[in-house]
Amino acid sequence: MGPGPLTRIAVDAMGGDDAPTAIVAGAVQAVRAGHDVVLVGDEARIRPLFPRRFEIPIVHTDDAIGMGDSPSSVRRREACSVRCVMQLVRDGEARAAVSCGSTGATLVAAVLDLGTLEGAERPAIATVMPRRDGGRVILLDAGANVDCRPELLACFAVLGVAYAEVSGVQRPRVGLLSNGTEEGKGNMQVRATLPLLRSHDLDVVGNVEPTGAMEGECDVLVCDGFVGNILLKAAEGAVTTVVSLLREEIRRRPSGVLGAFLLRGAFKRFRRRVEWDAHGGALLLGTRGVVVVGHGRANANAVAAAIAMAERNVSAGLVARMEERLSSGR
Amino acid sequence: MGPGPLTRIAVDAMGGDDAPTAIVAGAVQAVRAGHDVVLVGDEARIRPLFPRRFEIPIVHTDDAIGMGDSPSSVRRREACSVRCVMQLVRDGEARAAVSCGSTGATLVAAVLDLGTLEGAERPAIATVMPRRDGGRVILLDAGANVDCRPELLACFAVLGVAYAEVSGVQRPRVGLLSNGTEEGKGNMQVRATLPLLRSHDLDVVGNVEPTGAMEGECDVLVCDGFVGNILLKAAEGAVTTVVSLLREEIRRRPSGVLGAFLLRGAFKRFRRRVEWDAHGGALLLGTRGVVVVGHGRANANAVAAAIAMAERNVSAGLVARMEERLSSGR
Repeated sequence: MGPGPLTRIAVDAMGGDDAPTAIVAGAVQAVRAGHDVVLVGDEARIRPLFPRRFEIPIVHTDDAIGMGDSPSSVRRREACSVRCVMQLVRDGEARAAVSCGSTGATLVAAVLDLGTLEGAERPAIATVMPRRDGGRVILLDAGANVDCRPELLACFAVLGVAYAEVSGVQRPRVGLLSNGTEEGKGNMQVRATLPLLRSHDLDVVGNVEPTGAMEGECDVLVCDGFVGNILLKAAEGAVTTVVSLLREEIRRRPSGVLGAFLLRGAFKRFRRRVEWDAHGGALLLGTRGVVVVGHGRANANAVAAAIAMAERNVSAGLVARMEERLSSGR
Repeated sequence: MGPGPLTRIAVDAMGGDDAPTAIVAGAVQAVRAGHDVVLVGDEARIRPLFPRRFEIPIVHTDDAIGMGDSPSSVRRREACSVRCVMQLVRDGEARAAVSCGSTGATLVAAVLDLGTLEGAERPAIATVMPRRDGGRVILLDAGANVDCRPELLACFAVLGVAYAEVSGVQRPRVGLLSNGTEEGKGNMQVRATLPLLRSHDLDVVGNVEPTGAMEGECDVLVCDGFVGNILLKAAEGAVTTVVSLLREEIRRRPSGVLGAFLLRGAFKRFRRRVEWDAHGGALLLGTRGVVVVGHGRANANAVAAAIAMAERNVSAGLVARMEERLSSGR
């Protein structure tokens, strides 16, 4: 891929717990791997972080949204880094945006400067969870919209299917997150949404439980952003708890310590399969451009993975596929 | 503790995937450990499962609810085993009820035959999750009520606090499950519930995320049954996925297999800390009697643990504490 606006990824250098250091380091990795990046932020802080004789284009801006700023303050701050990133995509100067700053701020900036696609009332955050069968399930909404009407959930299903398709899944199966698989299970929202989903041109498998989704029952799992966020944090918390309790038990005996030493390779490969870093981040779906929301705690590897993820979805034609699905699929 | 109605636990011998075999085996374990049990179900199927020269009192009934029966069919089937179990408690013939059958059926039977406590409009299902700090967090509702008004969630908080108190927690801290800790986070339901919780005589820590709860931010975590069920199944699914992926990685190299062998003790102790079996099951809160809902896949150990759990909560005066809390705490 040659450099230029056609493949250029605009990266918010100022968003993230360890910005701009981790962001610049990740961008350097990505450029070395062949990606075309433009960094957006405070040039005086970014430039000193470049390795010797290494240059990445910078679009300078003074303003940046902090984690303490309310997402709505983004409205008045047209020149802040996360908004500049979106403006570069809107103006055709870049093909995708990456930010590891506040998800709320990124969402507001994307809606303001990129806008939503025809038929997508609100964007959703899509994340990818590992499945036991080695596959992946796309979960959306992961936190952008806490209260959703059934029509919005149906729209998320359409967007999720477009994302699954450009990720290489043929005829993605759509599941509606519920507390039981039987028809009629679920809360009022779920019971109103399932028939609506079935009325779309989608391969709907029905209600799916979190356990079922992780076992491979569907490729796209639809829910509102409140429940989706709870699901992800429950999974994250459970894994952290389990790993920490396991570590405690391992350290109790010398045989455990030796065993753990022998297993260090397996633990490492395992971590690569389940951790955030490797997957890049979440994707905003429904906006007029590819937007990757990296993890706030992103390190250089995670930033590089987020840039690669943005590039992949641009090349695969994610936005065109969403538009096509939105106009024909419902 | 001597036998007799004062400590007798009524166990539904016919509920559960492996009933009556696993249930009777668990009851035998429990009796040998000093518990006083009465089995309810088909005598002709139960009796042959007793070990030689071993007797447990049986209350015979022909009818039993299958996993395929709708919970509402329980209404017409007054003589089914799960209803008999509740009737024994109602009539003072037993002090607590245990069933590993359908949760919905157990709930309906408890409401019909035991009834709810004054001030508890609907019962909730309370489960216990391990925390990273070695403590436990009580989660409710885990699945009994999918759509809840704020008043009902506040009632669950009161019931959960009573349960935490009889479990030995002093001044239990109450968290409201949300997708962020800041005031104002959450969906409409959460935003309406938090001020109501604060108006009660409870130690409310505010909004709590699943990760925060598992790290020890609260002792009682309140949510509706839809979200609570999703949380539990997400945690369960994540742990299963992670353990299965880890096992795969371990098996790839001979050093991994040896390492795993050295770690088998640690894995075993770890399993005991996180698995269902050891904890006995979920507790119905808000009914006029202690009701333990064992896991449908319960084996003998899990059944024995469920009986011990029922006994523990009877001895600790759970029902009286709930009544006290319901009348004074709000």
